[in-house]
Amino acid sequence: MSELWPYVTPGIPDALFEQLPGIPMSKREVRLLLLGALRLRPHSVLWDIGAGTGTIAIEAGLLCHQGKIVAVERDEEVASLIKSNCQRFGVHNVEIVIGNAPECFDRLPYAPDCVLIEGGRQFEPLLTEAWARLVPRGRVVATASNFDTLNTISKTLTRLQVRHFEATQPVINRLEMRGTSQVLTAVDPIFILSGEKAAS
Amino acid sequence: MSELWPYVTPGIPDALFEQLPGIPMSKREVRLLLLGALRLRPHSVLWDIGAGTGTIAIEAGLLCHQGKIVAVERDEEVASLIKSNCQRFGVHNVEIVIGNAPECFDRLPYAPDCVLIEGGRQFEPLLTEAWARLVPRGRVVATASNFDTLNTISKTLTRLQVRHFEATQPVINRLEMRGTSQVLTAVDPIFILSGEKAAS
Amino acid sequence: MSELWPYVTPGIPDALFEQLPGIPMSKREVRLLLLGALRLRPHSVLWDIGAGTGTIAIEAGLLCHQGKIVAVERDEEVASLIKSNCQRFGVHNVEIVIGNAPECFDRLPYAPDCVLIEGGRQFEPLLTEAWARLVPRGRVVATASNFDTLNTISKTLTRLQVRHFEATQPVINRLEMRGTSQVLTAVDPIFILSGEKAAS
Amino acid sequence: MSELWPYVTPGIPDALFEQLPGIPMSKREVRLLLLGALRLRPHSVLWDIGAGTGTIAIEAGLLCHQGKIVAVERDEEVASLIKSNCQRFGVHNVEIVIGNAPECFDRLPYAPDCVLIEGGRQFEPLLTEAWARLVPRGRVVATASNFDTLNTISKTLTRLQVRHFEATQPVINRLEMRGTSQVLTAVDPIFILSGEKAAS
Repeated sequence: MSELWPYVTPGIPDALFEQLPGIPMSKREVRLLLLGALRLRPHSVLWDIGAGTGTIAIEAGLLCHQGKIVAVERDEEVASLIKSNCQRFGVHNVEIVIGNAPECFDRLPYAPDCVLIEGGRQFEPLLTEAWARLVPRGRVVATASNFDTLNTISKTLTRLQVRHFEATQPVINRLEMRGTSQVLTAVDPIFILSGEKAAS
Repeated sequence: MSELWPYVTPGIPDALFEQLPGIPMSKREVRLLLLGALRLRPHSVLWDIGAGTGTIAIEAGLLCHQGKIVAVERDEEVASLIKSNCQRFGVHNVEIVIGNAPECFDRLPYAPDCVLIEGGRQFEPLLTEAWARLVPRGRVVATASNFDTLNTISKTLTRLQVRHFEATQPVINRLEMRGTSQVLTAVDPIFILSGEKAAS
Repeated sequence: MSELWPYVTPGIPDALFEQLPGIPMSKREVRLLLLGALRLRPHSVLWDIGAGTGTIAIEAGLLCHQGKIVAVERDEEVASLIKSNCQRFGVHNVEIVIGNAPECFDRLPYAPDCVLIEGGRQFEPLLTEAWARLVPRGRVVATASNFDTLNTISKTLTRLQVRHFEATQPVINRLEMRGTSQVLTAVDPIFILSGEKAAS
Repeated sequence: MSELWPYVTPGIPDALFEQLPGIPMSKREVRLLLLGALRLRPHSVLWDIGAGTGTIAIEAGLLCHQGKIVAVERDEEVASLIKSNCQRFGVHNVEIVIGNAPECFDRLPYAPDCVLIEGGRQFEPLLTEAWARLVPRGRVVATASNFDTLNTISKTLTRLQVRHFEATQPVINRLEMRGTSQVLTAVDPIFILSGEKAAS
């Protein structure tokens, strides 16, 4: 249990993470929905592809006490950021791999039962290669921020015969301070697509 | 760990709950955000006022292994529904109290460190009375579905000098089947307000 | 100028239209955005394909004093509903054509400078055939309520080399009465895609 | 009819307006909904309080050929911006008044049949004073970007016994370019409240 986050519920406030300008980060509310879509188990192995600031990896690490999180990032500086955030929250079960996905998939430890794909330009090979390594009944979750990506993910998941396909689009408004006044602001909407591999 | 929901992440699909027509239920995505706002601990005592179908009580019961959930409902039939859902998920730490809030607060067991108020017409006395029983550093979360309630909750929390006040409004779109075709449908938007009691 | 709607701004309240159960109707706020995307001129010829309740045809008829609106519907009962709504608002420049699109396009009067496609299952032939008849600099607007349609429209418009492509997704919350209490309710989100034909 | 906007439908693209950093502007989609809520007539007199970039004043000026738009701004630089935008669109029926509202109301020409209040910190006196000058059956529209303002407007309109009270909250997502890729982005949500004065 982390001193900084001694809770059983996910949803760490954004400001508690170390951040770098330009490095993407799943906002708290979106993160809650992503973690919910992943359906993690105590022993889960999660591959977090395009881990960015590492917020999902850290929340998953805190939730899966006997699990293992593999955070894949191609950029060394970003990988350092994830490491730094893991230390901040006292998370020890996140393994950071610097590499390009899906090329690096062959050298990733542990077959995943959950895969999250948040970034990358080549969603089709990413999903296809991740799917091939996913254990039976494993889950895949992917996010899209535009229509092309939405369509690629959607079509690829259909081709892979994903089960229990689901798609949601959270539009989150937050009351925030701007200067001295409060303003209801919108978190940019993304699409969350998810589904499950067959039992065998 | 529930056989029906063997996961460490909340977010049970709506369809897994027994439901009764007309009885309100927090939809999965909204539920994830509510649980995140509550910040439950392993030993948390949660008062769930206006528990409805019992979805929050059950998810909280599954997450807080050493905790206690007190679900308050004035209607006996609704209380039976919650009980039935607890049995369905093998949840044993939810105590159901039939009664009117806030009158029944005096006979509720355990001082809460988390209070959720989802229903009721008298938000001001509900919040004030719940706040009086909340332990130091305890959290309160309340939802509003119209502007009057939003204002009452907002003003009351300000008067109670709540700390770390937050307000979000999730607007959730879901891809659903309508007849034979898929349609992106909207879950009715609600406001989620939350905050914390001072340390002493 | 209509007695029932003596305004120069569109946005007729939904309740002013005669409606039939099951017949789709563009809700007021979405209608305002659709009309804005169409960019009608005083002499515009608008083809309204899948006109439903006729709300767009009537608003466009009121705005385009010297223009002509062709409302295409395959169902006779729906066509009667449009006619009835035209009479209600004193609109005389809407021509109702009963027929299947795009087969009926050859017998439609006047080449359109604006085309709206709100319904139908075959968006690709619909868009392609409408585009072929559109005058230079003419505009096309289409709506999608799911990802497949969104993708079909998006891809087809790209193939047709549409200019000034735009896509918006309004998520409209409205304060409505439910029983005796006000509730903020969501209008189902749709995607609005639009663009323009080249000058020659 | 403006050369730059030769259409009968409102909805001028944001980029067609001259803009100044920090000066608020109603985004196109929100502007369409505001104009729809105003219900302008050919002879309307619109008071636009806190006119900002002047987008509403210009669209209203183009729609109300025999009408008169009074744009009130306290800042001279902003007033110049409105003037410049009027010239750009060839709009001649917008009168710009530099002054503080509601103090300046007594020297405004023409009693309004439509009032739009988009800015200001003192919504209660603004609404009350504007209401006193509104002709019978006149309409008032106000926007709120946070809960306090929302509540003030809502309560004030109730006290003034506004008829046909309506409230909508558009959440507009737009596909925009960010760098070389398209991203669905959200326009910050605002609340639009409107209503009508009794006939006598």
